[in-house]
Amino acid sequence: MQYDVHALLQSGVLLTDQALERLLPSPNTPPHSIHRAMRHSTFAGGKRLRPILCLEAARMVAGGNTCDAAAAELGAALEMIHTYSLIHDDLPALDNDDLRRGQPTCHVAFGEASAILAGDALQTLAFQTIGNLNIPPAAVVAILKAVSSAVATGVGADLPGGLPPGMIGGQVMDIEGEGTKPTAELVERIHRAKTGALIKVSVIAGGLLAGGSEDAIARLATFGEKAGLAFQIVDDVLDMTQDSAQLGKTAGKDTASDKATWPAVFGIEQSIHDAGELVADAFAALDPFGESAAPLKALATYLTTRTK
Amino acid sequence: MQYDVHALLQSGVLLTDQALERLLPSPNTPPHSIHRAMRHSTFAGGKRLRPILCLEAARMVAGGNTCDAAAAELGAALEMIHTYSLIHDDLPALDNDDLRRGQPTCHVAFGEASAILAGDALQTLAFQTIGNLNIPPAAVVAILKAVSSAVATGVGADLPGGLPPGMIGGQVMDIEGEGTKPTAELVERIHRAKTGALIKVSVIAGGLLAGGSEDAIARLATFGEKAGLAFQIVDDVLDMTQDSAQLGKTAGKDTASDKATWPAVFGIEQSIHDAGELVADAFAALDPFGESAAPLKALATYLTTRTK
Repeated sequence: MQYDVHALLQSGVLLTDQALERLLPSPNTPPHSIHRAMRHSTFAGGKRLRPILCLEAARMVAGGNTCDAAAAELGAALEMIHTYSLIHDDLPALDNDDLRRGQPTCHVAFGEASAILAGDALQTLAFQTIGNLNIPPAAVVAILKAVSSAVATGVGADLPGGLPPGMIGGQVMDIEGEGTKPTAELVERIHRAKTGALIKVSVIAGGLLAGGSEDAIARLATFGEKAGLAFQIVDDVLDMTQDSAQLGKTAGKDTASDKATWPAVFGIEQSIHDAGELVADAFAALDPFGESAAPLKALATYLTTRTK
Repeated sequence: MQYDVHALLQSGVLLTDQALERLLPSPNTPPHSIHRAMRHSTFAGGKRLRPILCLEAARMVAGGNTCDAAAAELGAALEMIHTYSLIHDDLPALDNDDLRRGQPTCHVAFGEASAILAGDALQTLAFQTIGNLNIPPAAVVAILKAVSSAVATGVGADLPGGLPPGMIGGQVMDIEGEGTKPTAELVERIHRAKTGALIKVSVIAGGLLAGGSEDAIARLATFGEKAGLAFQIVDDVLDMTQDSAQLGKTAGKDTASDKATWPAVFGIEQSIHDAGELVADAFAALDPFGESAAPLKALATYLTTRTK
C-alpha cells in the first residue's frame, strides 16, 4: 500500500507542537529569560522525527489512535531531550556552532549561561512530562528506564542490566575522537550512541506506552535501531554534499573538524548502499504487523531518501 | 532525647557513598573522560545533606531502617542532581568558580566540554536511578513527579498543578538579579527555589518512598521547607564571616558580586534570629511523630548551628 507520508508528517508535527506549546512554560512566566531560551530552540523548525516515530509506533501497537493524547506528550518529552542535546552541543566549549535549523543557536540568541540552563531545564521537563503521563504507573516506569538509559553516558557491563551506550556517551566519544582518523568501528559506535539511541528509544517508548508485548517491543527496537542508523548515515552524506542554505545549518563542519562520519570512512556510494540495506532490515523486523506497519515503513523510506 | 548527630551523619555519608560508588559508572568504563569527571565532582567531599535527610525521613515514616537500601539509592540520585547543579553553576559562563569543596571545580580539572556533559549525565543518571528503585511503580511515579518539579525552572500557575518554583528557576533569578540591590522578597524567593526546593523534596521523597500518608508528607514538606531555608541563611552568614580556607570554597563571593543573600538584606544578627525561628517551625511540624522525629530534629539543629 502507498502511504501519504507528507500528511502523516504534517499531522505529527501539529500534534507534537500542540503538546510542546502546552508543556513548555509560557514566555511570560518568570523567570522569563530561560523560558524564552527554551522556546527559542524548541520551536526553531525541527522535523519532530522522534515524536512522530513515537506516535506511529504507539498507533501501530494500539491498532489505532486511542493513545494519541499520551503519545503526543511522550513525543514532546523526547523532542525536549533532543533539543537540550542540540543546545549543549552547539555551545562554544563543544561544537561552537552559530546556526541551527537556519536560526541563531541558543547561546548566540540568549547568552551562554541561559543556553546551559535552558538545556538543563529541558532535560528536567522531559522527565517531568514522562512522570505526568496519564498511563498506568508500571508503563511510566518502563518508559523512564528505557529513555534514561538511552540518553545516559553509555554505562558498561559493570552496571546492572549491561545497558547499551547512550546519547551523552556518543557525544563524548565524538569529542574524544576529533582530530584522529576515524575507524569504521568507532564511527558505528558513535552513531549508534549519539543519534541512534534516542531514535531507537522513541520507537520503543511509543510501543511501551501502547502496552506492546515483549515481542512487539523487541521488533520495534530492531526497527528503530536500523532506521535510526540509516537516517544518520543519510544525514552525514547530506552534510558532505549540500551547502548551508539547503541544510539550514553550517554545512561541511563534520569534514572540516575531521569528525567521525560514515561517508568519511566508507565513501558516499557505499554509505548510500548501507543505508538502503539497513532500511530493508528495519522493514523485515515489522513484517508480522502487516499493513499496520505501513506508516512506520513510509517514514523510514522518507527519512532515508530525503535531500535535506 | 539527646541524639548523637555525628554518628547519624557518619552512617548516612557511608550509605550514600556506597550507593554512589555502585551507581556511577566505573572510571575504567569508556568513555572514560566523562565518567572520571562525574566522579571527581561527586566524590569531592560533599556533606551528603540531601541523601541524609531523605534517609532519615524514610526511617521516620517506616518506623525503622527497612527501607534503607532503596532510600540510599534515592539519596544518591538527589546527590547526583545537587552535584550536577554545582558543576554547571561553577562554569565560566555562570559563577566562574575555580574552587569547590576545597578541590578544583569540574571544568578546571577536566575542561568545559566535559564539565557540561558530566553535569548533563549526572542529571540523567539521577532520573535513571529513580526509575530503577525497587519499590512499587506508583511510588516511583510520585517521587519522579516531586523531584522533577523541584529541580525545574519554576513553572507557573499556567501549568497543571501550579507547581512551586524549582532549582533551575532559582539559579536563573539569581543571575538575573546580579548587580541590582536585592530586595527581601527576591532573596526569599531565590532561596526557596535555588537551594530550598531540592532540600525540601529530599525529605518529601524519603517519605514517599516509605509509603507515608498524605498528612505525613505534608508535615515533612513543611519541615523540609523551613529547615532548608534556615540552612541556606546560615550558609550565607558563614560566607560573610568565614575565610576560604575554613569554607573550602571561595569566601565572600556572594558579597563581591552583590548576590542576593539573607544577611545582605537583613543583617547578620537578624539572619541568625530568623534561622532560629525557622528551625522552631520545622520542629513543630514533626510534633505528631514524637520520639521518632529525633534524628531529623537533631539534623536540623546541627545544620543551623554549624560553623563551616
